[in-house]
Amino acid sequence: MKQITRTPIVILNFKTYLESTGKRALELAKISGEVAEETGINVVVSPQHADVWQIAKEVEIPVFAQHVDPVDAGGHTGSILMESMMEAGASGTLINHSEQRMKLADIDAVVKKVKANDMVSVVCTNNVETSAAAATLKPNFVAIEPPELIGSGIPVSKAEPEVVEGTVDVIHQINPDVKVLCGAGISAGEDMRAALDLGAEGVLLASGIILADDPKAALLDLVSKI
Amino acid sequence: MKQITRTPIVILNFKTYLESTGKRALELAKISGEVAEETGINVVVSPQHADVWQIAKEVEIPVFAQHVDPVDAGGHTGSILMESMMEAGASGTLINHSEQRMKLADIDAVVKKVKANDMVSVVCTNNVETSAAAATLKPNFVAIEPPELIGSGIPVSKAEPEVVEGTVDVIHQINPDVKVLCGAGISAGEDMRAALDLGAEGVLLASGIILADDPKAALLDLVSKI
Amino acid sequence: MKQITRTPIVILNFKTYLESTGKRALELAKISGEVAEETGINVVVSPQHADVWQIAKEVEIPVFAQHVDPVDAGGHTGSILMESMMEAGASGTLINHSEQRMKLADIDAVVKKVKANDMVSVVCTNNVETSAAAATLKPNFVAIEPPELIGSGIPVSKAEPEVVEGTVDVIHQINPDVKVLCGAGISAGEDMRAALDLGAEGVLLASGIILADDPKAALLDLVSKI
Amino acid sequence: MKQITRTPIVILNFKTYLESTGKRALELAKISGEVAEETGINVVVSPQHADVWQIAKEVEIPVFAQHVDPVDAGGHTGSILMESMMEAGASGTLINHSEQRMKLADIDAVVKKVKANDMVSVVCTNNVETSAAAATLKPNFVAIEPPELIGSGIPVSKAEPEVVEGTVDVIHQINPDVKVLCGAGISAGEDMRAALDLGAEGVLLASGIILADDPKAALLDLVSKI
Repeated sequence: MKQITRTPIVILNFKTYLESTGKRALELAKISGEVAEETGINVVVSPQHADVWQIAKEVEIPVFAQHVDPVDAGGHTGSILMESMMEAGASGTLINHSEQRMKLADIDAVVKKVKANDMVSVVCTNNVETSAAAATLKPNFVAIEPPELIGSGIPVSKAEPEVVEGTVDVIHQINPDVKVLCGAGISAGEDMRAALDLGAEGVLLASGIILADDPKAALLDLVSKI
Repeated sequence: MKQITRTPIVILNFKTYLESTGKRALELAKISGEVAEETGINVVVSPQHADVWQIAKEVEIPVFAQHVDPVDAGGHTGSILMESMMEAGASGTLINHSEQRMKLADIDAVVKKVKANDMVSVVCTNNVETSAAAATLKPNFVAIEPPELIGSGIPVSKAEPEVVEGTVDVIHQINPDVKVLCGAGISAGEDMRAALDLGAEGVLLASGIILADDPKAALLDLVSKI
Repeated sequence: MKQITRTPIVILNFKTYLESTGKRALELAKISGEVAEETGINVVVSPQHADVWQIAKEVEIPVFAQHVDPVDAGGHTGSILMESMMEAGASGTLINHSEQRMKLADIDAVVKKVKANDMVSVVCTNNVETSAAAATLKPNFVAIEPPELIGSGIPVSKAEPEVVEGTVDVIHQINPDVKVLCGAGISAGEDMRAALDLGAEGVLLASGIILADDPKAALLDLVSKI
Repeated sequence: MKQITRTPIVILNFKTYLESTGKRALELAKISGEVAEETGINVVVSPQHADVWQIAKEVEIPVFAQHVDPVDAGGHTGSILMESMMEAGASGTLINHSEQRMKLADIDAVVKKVKANDMVSVVCTNNVETSAAAATLKPNFVAIEPPELIGSGIPVSKAEPEVVEGTVDVIHQINPDVKVLCGAGISAGEDMRAALDLGAEGVLLASGIILADDPKAALLDLVSKI
C-alpha cells in the first residue's frame, strides 16, 4: 500500500477517449511506466474497465479503476464489481469522479469496501466543502477538481489556488492522513509544481496528457519541476 | 452477423457472481465453448466488462457485453464505451437488463450505435407492452424476462406462457425480423423446449447454469431437448 | 376524458421558471383560461407540483402534472405520487419529458396507472423511433420534441417537418388512437398552423409563451391560425 | 429561524402514504398543530409537495418539503424547485432521505441554497460516517436513520444506541452548531426519551404516527416523556 500511495503521485485518468482505448490504452500505460521508471515518480494509470486486465499484466506501475459500483457480488448485470477489478489487477479506484458522481451513502460504502480489500481509494470532489465531507470518510486521497476547469486547459493550481489551499487546510484539520490531489486543467510542469507548493501531494489529470501530440514528452514535462 | 445470431441461441449472462468473475469466468466461457462445439448450438457468453478481453481471446464463441452506456468517446470517466467493448472483442451487448434499466431514449441511441457497428443488440424487457415498444427500435433480439421470475428457478415458459406467446405475437406484427428470447427462471432442458414451442428462438439465462454444481452438465441438459 | 383530450389542444408546460411559479403560475393559468374561453381552443396548463392544487381550484381548464414518479403509495419520501396529483386536481400528466427522461419499464407502468385512473397521458419523445415505441404503450398523446430544438425558438414544424410527419405516419400505423403533439421551438401562430398541417393535433410548449412580454397576446397569436 | 429550529423538535415525514395525502394530509397537519399548541413542543410536518401550499395556509406550525432538486429556476420540467416550495409556504426541507438519496455534490449545493434563503436544512444519513460527512456541510440538522430500521417499529434509540451516540459525538467535534435528530423505528414516548438521553435534539418519524389508529394519541404519547 505504501508503495502504491507514495507521493508525489501522478494519476493519469484515461477516461473514455478513443486515444486511450484498447491498444492505445496499453501504449499509453507503457509510456507511463517508462516515465515512472526514468524519473522515479509514482505514476498510476486509470484505464477503462475492459483494459485493466491487459494493462495490469504488462506494466509494473499501479492500475486504478475509474469507478466501481456500490454493489456486492450477485445479480447486478452490467455493474462494475470491485472484486472483478481486483482480479483484473487494479490496486485502487477513483470514486465519485465529476463525470460519475455518486450518492453520499454509496461513496461511504465503496471507500469502506476498498479499504477492507487493501486497495487505494481516491475520492474526487468539486469544492472545499465536499472535500471536507469526503475526508471524514477516510479515503487515501481526495482529489479536488472544480468542474468548470476540467478539460479547460486552465490549471486549478493557478486559476483557483485558494480552492487547493482551502482543501489542504480543511482536510488537514479533519484527518491529516488523507492526502490531497489536485486536478482540472493541469498539464504543464509548472502547474504541477504550483499544486505541490499549495500543499497537494500529486495530481489527477487526463486530456492534457492523453490528447497531447507526444504524451511521453507531455508527461515528462509534467513531472519535470517536482 | 448471421453466424452470431443463429438460432436457437443460448445467451449465458455471467452477471456479477463471484462464480463467474475472472478466472472462473474464463473457465465458464471455455465450458460454454465446449458445449457449443459438442452440440452445435449457438452459445453466447456475457461476462463482466473486465473479463471480455481475455475471454474473447481464448474462446471461439461470441462474447456479448452486459451493458454499454449511452455515451460517445470523450470525457465519461467510469462509463462503458461501446468502442472499448468492441476492441476488447465483444460482438454484441445486452441492453436494458432488468438489473440495469435504461431510459427509452438511451435504449434507442444504443441500439442504433450497436447496429451501426455491426454488433448484435439484445434488448431486455419486462412484459408484452415493453417488448412491443422495444421491437419498434429494431434490435436483433428482444429478451422477455418477467422480473418477478428472475433468479426464481420458476421458468417463465411454464409459469407465464402467455407472456412469451403474447410477446412473440406482438413482435411478429411489429417487426418479424426481431427475434424473441425468453429469460427468467430457465434452467432445464424442458424449460428451453417449452420456450421454443411458444415461439421463442432462444433463451437468456444466468443463475440456473452459473450457480449449478456442474455448469457443463447443466448447460448440456439445457440444450438437450432442442 | 373526451373533453380533456379534445383537439386541437395546446399544452402549456410551466417548467420551473420563476415567471411561472406560485402567484405568477396562477396568473398564467388564469390567462390561459381566458384564452380558452375566448377562442374555444382546448388549452391545458402544466404547472409545478406545488401549484397544481391552487390552480385547479381557480381555473376551469384542465391541469396536468409535469411528471409523476413510478411508485405506488407508501414509503417514497420526496416522490411525486400520482394519487397526490389527482387529489390536488390534476387530470393528466406529462411523462418522460426531455428534462425528466424515464426508463422504458417506468413509462409503461405510469401510462397504465394513469389510464387505470381515467387520467390523460402525454408521453414525450425525441425522434420518430421513440415515438413509435411510445405509441405501442397506448398513451393518449405522444409529444414529439427533438431535444436540440427545445427552447431554441426554432419551430420543429418548420426546421424538421419530416420528424413530425414521420411520427404521425408511424403512430398512425401502430395505433391510430394515439394523437400526436408537436413541441420544441413552437411559439407563433404559423408554427402551430404548420404543426397541424403536418398531422399533429396540437402543441406542447413552454418558453415561447411563458417568457413572452405579454403571455396572453402570445397565446392568442399561437392559436390565431388554427 | 430560531423559532423553527427550537428543540426538542419532532419532524413528521408524511412520505407518500395515502393516509397522509391531500385532505388526510391536511387533517394530520391540523392534529400536529394541536399537539404543538397543547404541549409546547416544536412539531414540524413534511407533507408531499402538492400538499404544502394548502397546509402552510391552514396551520401555524412549520412545514418542510420532503425533498428539493439540485436545480435553479429554468427548464427543469418535473423537478422540485426550492423557490416553488418556499412560495408555497415551506420553511425548510429534508435532504437526502433514505428513500431519496442524493449525490454528495448535490447535497452540498442544496444545503447552501437552503441556507442562502434562510430556510432550514435537515440532511438525513445512514451511519456515523456519513453523519460526520454531512455535518461538514453545515446543515441545521443531521437526522441519523439506519436504513434497516426505517419502518421496522424497532427504535434506533434502543436497537443501536451506539449509532446515535457516535453520531452525536462526531458531529459535536466537527461542528457543534449542527443538531442531531434520530429517526427510524421511533414511535413511543420512551423511544423519543431514549433518543434525547443519547444526545439527540429531536426525532424524524413517519409510519409510527401516520399509520397509527389514532395519530393524535400517538403523537401525544411520543412527546409525553420529553
